[in-house]
Amino acid sequence: MIRLHFSNILTEEIGENGISLLEIENEAKKSISLLSKKPYKELEFLDLPFQDISKIKDFGKKAKDYEYFIILGIGGSALGPKVLLEALSPFNNLRKEKKVFIYDNVDPATFKYIIEIIDLKKTLINVISKSGSTAETLASFLIFWKMIRDKKLDVKEHFIFTTDPEKGNLRLIANEYEIPCLEIPKNVVGRYSVLTAVGLLLAEAIGVKSEEILEGARAISERAFNENLSENPMAYLASCLYLMDRLKNRKVLVFLPYSDRLRTLSEWFCQLWAESLGKEGKGTTPYPSIGTTDQHSQLQLWMEGPEDKVILFVTVENHGFQEEIPEEFHNIEGLRYLGGHTLEELINTEQLATEMALRKSKKPNMKIVLPKINAYYIGQIFQFLQVVTSMAGLLYGVNPFNQPGVELGKRLTYGALGKRGFETEGQEVKNYLKKKGFIV
Amino acid sequence: MIRLHFSNILTEEIGENGISLLEIENEAKKSISLLSKKPYKELEFLDLPFQDISKIKDFGKKAKDYEYFIILGIGGSALGPKVLLEALSPFNNLRKEKKVFIYDNVDPATFKYIIEIIDLKKTLINVISKSGSTAETLASFLIFWKMIRDKKLDVKEHFIFTTDPEKGNLRLIANEYEIPCLEIPKNVVGRYSVLTAVGLLLAEAIGVKSEEILEGARAISERAFNENLSENPMAYLASCLYLMDRLKNRKVLVFLPYSDRLRTLSEWFCQLWAESLGKEGKGTTPYPSIGTTDQHSQLQLWMEGPEDKVILFVTVENHGFQEEIPEEFHNIEGLRYLGGHTLEELINTEQLATEMALRKSKKPNMKIVLPKINAYYIGQIFQFLQVVTSMAGLLYGVNPFNQPGVELGKRLTYGALGKRGFETEGQEVKNYLKKKGFIV
Repeated sequence: MIRLHFSNILTEEIGENGISLLEIENEAKKSISLLSKKPYKELEFLDLPFQDISKIKDFGKKAKDYEYFIILGIGGSALGPKVLLEALSPFNNLRKEKKVFIYDNVDPATFKYIIEIIDLKKTLINVISKSGSTAETLASFLIFWKMIRDKKLDVKEHFIFTTDPEKGNLRLIANEYEIPCLEIPKNVVGRYSVLTAVGLLLAEAIGVKSEEILEGARAISERAFNENLSENPMAYLASCLYLMDRLKNRKVLVFLPYSDRLRTLSEWFCQLWAESLGKEGKGTTPYPSIGTTDQHSQLQLWMEGPEDKVILFVTVENHGFQEEIPEEFHNIEGLRYLGGHTLEELINTEQLATEMALRKSKKPNMKIVLPKINAYYIGQIFQFLQVVTSMAGLLYGVNPFNQPGVELGKRLTYGALGKRGFETEGQEVKNYLKKKGFIV
Repeated sequence: MIRLHFSNILTEEIGENGISLLEIENEAKKSISLLSKKPYKELEFLDLPFQDISKIKDFGKKAKDYEYFIILGIGGSALGPKVLLEALSPFNNLRKEKKVFIYDNVDPATFKYIIEIIDLKKTLINVISKSGSTAETLASFLIFWKMIRDKKLDVKEHFIFTTDPEKGNLRLIANEYEIPCLEIPKNVVGRYSVLTAVGLLLAEAIGVKSEEILEGARAISERAFNENLSENPMAYLASCLYLMDRLKNRKVLVFLPYSDRLRTLSEWFCQLWAESLGKEGKGTTPYPSIGTTDQHSQLQLWMEGPEDKVILFVTVENHGFQEEIPEEFHNIEGLRYLGGHTLEELINTEQLATEMALRKSKKPNMKIVLPKINAYYIGQIFQFLQVVTSMAGLLYGVNPFNQPGVELGKRLTYGALGKRGFETEGQEVKNYLKKKGFIV
């Protein structure tokens, strides 16, 4: 089971920058009680570990037959699959026969390079969009659609859609052309969707067992409502992060895993936290970091910059690889101390030293410990962080499942591209482009 | 030439969240005058575009003969090369014969995977450490050193060191074993070193001409001291970012390129900015972002979260690839508007729409425009941002070239690993590990 260390956020350890255990536990109890009322239907993500995955597994079997697997998706439709790929099949495209590309932007260069590498005849394209109207995803879908048809290939054999069970453009097209479909349940929103077909099909395609991911997540779902605080680390973490903002005005949350395989977990978490809580002037800025690398990049700022951060370490107890540092150059003092240790010892020691340095300097920090990196614990950390984020949203009193702030930009994009019904926005863009502005 | 748009930071555009042109220009003049005094010898990075690169080019020729090129380095010794690789040779390891790995962590899993992929006999290893005592870099160096010797390969043929001209462990070893060496000039510090052999050898190894990178950088060096503000966008940018912090308390600087090829430029800039300015309680937190992707991740927080951010767009006028979106599914309104546009249009339109949405919501934002992505403009943006960061440091009144805050963590690491002279720290670590702490 994932564990949470939170001593270094307490007053007795870091003085006036800290908070008291009593404050934390009061807020933690409140977060559990708020969650127990199930105030949003979107909390259905808690039930995902108990879903029937037989259809996903069937599609996964089919996906195994293709040499190239491409995901077209962005935001919640891309970040979860990215984590699974990088955590559970690192260096996949250099080590494995099946190459996977997650195209989560509309960069024309990236598109061209991917096309250069793949062979369309051997490619399965998984288009992921809950609404079926995500501009970026549909734009690249349209290009692939035409390419597949131009090559006289069967669209039914080269596309799988992952989308809403009933509605949207992808559903319309699927019905007309008999494209195989997987569902994102109606009440599950994008950034909480990694435990649906969104993440699980990719997992199966690269040979990871979905059921193990879900088993890990289940252990968390079963504890989310547990009022016995010692069984509910999620409530502690939500409460600590909330209080660090509200009582101590610490508005930057550094998410800091010490493992290359968890690098994209930072990106996934940062979407989850930012979009769920950043509203009504509330929320904090989640910062995607990586250790030990960022000790040589960001640590200076954390130690001596503005007092506005909380550091959340994520460590891995057993990396599954040892790799001993040999005892060479015994005459050179600056090298001798390294010999005989392993890389695992070194990465974990550096984490510990950084944690201690922050504590000595009275900087609040906490630590999530993963026993190892495998499907089970990746499932656990996903659900763990989804529960923590929901709880934090309830403490802040915001709806952790909407994102009203992105609409304006979308409307202006529609206007600029000439979508019907957005003529006013189109005019606004034209006027803006006419302005000279200050340019140097 | 790189251009800077800064209208959307002015009071007339965004009201009370903005600042006045007068304030900006006063501060900009001050930054030029401070820089002109050359108060730090480390400003020598401004002279790098004029260096003699014949030795680097010779070594680059040699590097071309190897199938695998590995960089061992961390922080400033890794991030610059990463930018060059990803910007100028995207998907390098899937598309090119020569595979490049930049090992910038001590993750034992990553190490194992790289070893699995490469063939040591065909591998050139570039060890980069200015001081020659970076623990992470030396640890992986020791492992590779033993592997090369165990295979009875000639260390002279498989290692190149990039290090201090005179001092340090790498220099000692180079002298003893006749390892070829490139220099990092004495007065150039890690995070300002991309235009030395640190970045340029990698460039040559992948077939990029160093002289083009330096030519771009030269255009910036030549303008850095220019008191004619209309010729000095660096002074404007430094001044705007400084004032947004000091006058408006905006402590998060989102660095937001709209191009996958500039993704690691965000990481490089974030090290430069954080380590240079984050001291004496000053500085702001640079946030590594990427468009359009983060419109589906962070935009909600920027639009409706706390009022603590400045957004700095980086756009590319000509991506060099078109890729037209076909006009398919004419009966579906939600798809029709996309047809006939190109991916380049879409990515640049989304940037524009996001900029307009932020402006309408009175959020300060600015834009750096790159004409295209090539060696010349990558050289330019490196030097541009290095000058901006130095100027900001001078305005803050901090030394932008040191990093005293990382020492404590290093000492504790030495102590934990048993390095001679760090026995007190070693005891401290032992005591810390004995404490029970709050764990749930």
